[in-house]
Amino acid sequence: MAIIVQKFGGTSVGSLERIEAVAEQIIQTKSRGHQVVAVLSAMSGETNRLLDLAHQLDANPSPRELDMLLASGEQVSISLLAMALIKRGYSAVSLLANQIGLRTNNRFNKARIKYIDNTRMLTELQQGHVVIVAGFQGCDDEGNVTTLGRGGSDTSAVAIAASLQAKECQIFTDVDGVYTTDPRIEAQAKKLDQVSFEEMLEMASSGAKVLHSRSVEFAGAHKMPLRVLSSFKSGSGTKINFNEANLTNNPVTAIASQKDEAMLTLFGISNDSLLKKELFLALAEADIEVDMIQQASINHKSNDLIFTLHRNDYLKADEIVNGLIRSNLLDKSCGDDKLVKMSLIGSGIRSNTKVSRQLFECLHENNIELFLISSSEIKISFLVKPQVHDLLVKALHQKFKLDQ
Amino acid sequence: MAIIVQKFGGTSVGSLERIEAVAEQIIQTKSRGHQVVAVLSAMSGETNRLLDLAHQLDANPSPRELDMLLASGEQVSISLLAMALIKRGYSAVSLLANQIGLRTNNRFNKARIKYIDNTRMLTELQQGHVVIVAGFQGCDDEGNVTTLGRGGSDTSAVAIAASLQAKECQIFTDVDGVYTTDPRIEAQAKKLDQVSFEEMLEMASSGAKVLHSRSVEFAGAHKMPLRVLSSFKSGSGTKINFNEANLTNNPVTAIASQKDEAMLTLFGISNDSLLKKELFLALAEADIEVDMIQQASINHKSNDLIFTLHRNDYLKADEIVNGLIRSNLLDKSCGDDKLVKMSLIGSGIRSNTKVSRQLFECLHENNIELFLISSSEIKISFLVKPQVHDLLVKALHQKFKLDQ
Repeated sequence: MAIIVQKFGGTSVGSLERIEAVAEQIIQTKSRGHQVVAVLSAMSGETNRLLDLAHQLDANPSPRELDMLLASGEQVSISLLAMALIKRGYSAVSLLANQIGLRTNNRFNKARIKYIDNTRMLTELQQGHVVIVAGFQGCDDEGNVTTLGRGGSDTSAVAIAASLQAKECQIFTDVDGVYTTDPRIEAQAKKLDQVSFEEMLEMASSGAKVLHSRSVEFAGAHKMPLRVLSSFKSGSGTKINFNEANLTNNPVTAIASQKDEAMLTLFGISNDSLLKKELFLALAEADIEVDMIQQASINHKSNDLIFTLHRNDYLKADEIVNGLIRSNLLDKSCGDDKLVKMSLIGSGIRSNTKVSRQLFECLHENNIELFLISSSEIKISFLVKPQVHDLLVKALHQKFKLDQ
Repeated sequence: MAIIVQKFGGTSVGSLERIEAVAEQIIQTKSRGHQVVAVLSAMSGETNRLLDLAHQLDANPSPRELDMLLASGEQVSISLLAMALIKRGYSAVSLLANQIGLRTNNRFNKARIKYIDNTRMLTELQQGHVVIVAGFQGCDDEGNVTTLGRGGSDTSAVAIAASLQAKECQIFTDVDGVYTTDPRIEAQAKKLDQVSFEEMLEMASSGAKVLHSRSVEFAGAHKMPLRVLSSFKSGSGTKINFNEANLTNNPVTAIASQKDEAMLTLFGISNDSLLKKELFLALAEADIEVDMIQQASINHKSNDLIFTLHRNDYLKADEIVNGLIRSNLLDKSCGDDKLVKMSLIGSGIRSNTKVSRQLFECLHENNIELFLISSSEIKISFLVKPQVHDLLVKALHQKFKLDQ
């Protein structure tokens, strides 16, 4: 008898009808002889409703109190699902983060999981109960309610699966799997039956919204097999496979896009190491995540530094850079806060030298300019203007035969 | 520096505007040099919204899961109030029942408080924080969420006040104090400046809705001074006074009414002690609260037994009684599920023999029949038909000079 962890997101539990459908889904899994732990998000719309209440009181509500407020959303969905299962004759028990000992640090609004005490969950499973856990939330050492930030419920599910040594962690969502690219942009986009963990991590951190990168990272670190499935229609979804073997002949597996990117270029850095120390310290203190970093030497006298970040952080970062100009640590800067980062992802990229050549061919054929490019073992990322994005997705999808 | 516990009910925190008004109220109390612990109910309407969701899934939802669901309501109101105070420059911290160690038994939906660990609250108060606690909820020995049932937030507030040895427990509500009778029925009804604890307890258990009898009982047991105040207008409300001295010349302090009463009469009891054992065991097992009990010997051969209960329990109780008839423990029964219990309450009743006489005079003058009467030291209760209720309230209010 294996333990299966099933995570259901906000739209999957967005109404009483949906909650009843989730109950049926769990019963199906149980009837196949598995023990089930369900991890839920709040009913869709609920988190926004609560956020709206908070923001009416205070534009910058207390982070601790915001977590206390938001965590109430999952408490509603888990108890309702338990009722739906009990009504159907299945014993079920809903549990909050503090009840399963899901301990986090005390960084409110984006807490990190420290450990989970699986005792209570195992006891409940042994008694034949379906265990229904509130995702997204945690509990710090002082017993304060914390939340895990964006994608938090996925991370909860993976961490819980790991702590229970589950057979598989299934992420039920509103799409039926991981696609070669966004099917709303490229109708020929194909569902992938399996993706390697490495690829999924690169996809998640490159804008593929189906899974949050933190949860994939967590799954990787704990070797927890993942599966992405639709909670609206049946199917085997996409398995996130830990096998290194590339199962297709295509070097590229998928194309991911991260909208809302911004880029800042710093010209004429007079004292390179001091500037970088000051810059990245200030960015870190302002809680700004830097994505790509590149340094280019235009002439021999000074260096230029380029980095990318989320558009929402652009103004804050620009202010920091202007401060450095006033301190004479650099001459001037320029930036663009309307860019898209596109990424080609595939385990085959590392062993296939043709990928870059084909990418540049495609850019040339379509007369598209790129602003920054960087590559890792299994990924090539680059920035383009938003208006060329959709065209380029289609062109690259065809070029790399992702529809086949 | 004294600790004041202030409890705000659902209508007092029913909107963001109301929550901001409560924040101002707390700030006023703090500015008078007090440490404040606020105990809140859920925003009005929220508990009903959640109950409605539960009942759509299951007409008889799991009691454990219902408590989990309902407890989310207070989590919302406490965190929003904390935000409102923090926005105004006051430090505040919201705490759930499990965070203040409010331990109850595991009787879901109507749990009883076992003890409270005041450590966290005292620490927060010493740091200058306003402490905002979720009322109505508790936590059993296994860490399950429980709720205290009707009037639960009042009970939470009193228990918290007792555990902190507060100076006073203030119950803010939508009325400005305790009245001689319901002002919607008798326009001459007068607000009482103070009421003795005994009187308040009798009033609460006789239908006066302003305080729940359990909270008054708890306050009495812990000698915790109470005050009932309006959260909508200023005023000193009604103090619940532990002084035994009757402060008025009137033997009667107030008239309370409990609608929705039912009465069952059991005729021809063949084996008195066996019947009573069976009857009260069955009623207790069905969770039916019996109010008044009387036994009358009509002739010398058999006894009749009369008891009253809430109208909602009438059908269940009638079934139990019919079972006893089938077991030949009694001949027959009759009942009435449309009655009102009225009570005259006053510390002066015990020392004033005229009260019963005046009551019967009044009944006679108004040609009103009563069905059952019982009296204690400071209370005379009796059942009447609903249609004579309002008339009798007015007549008794005048007869006992409660408007003076």
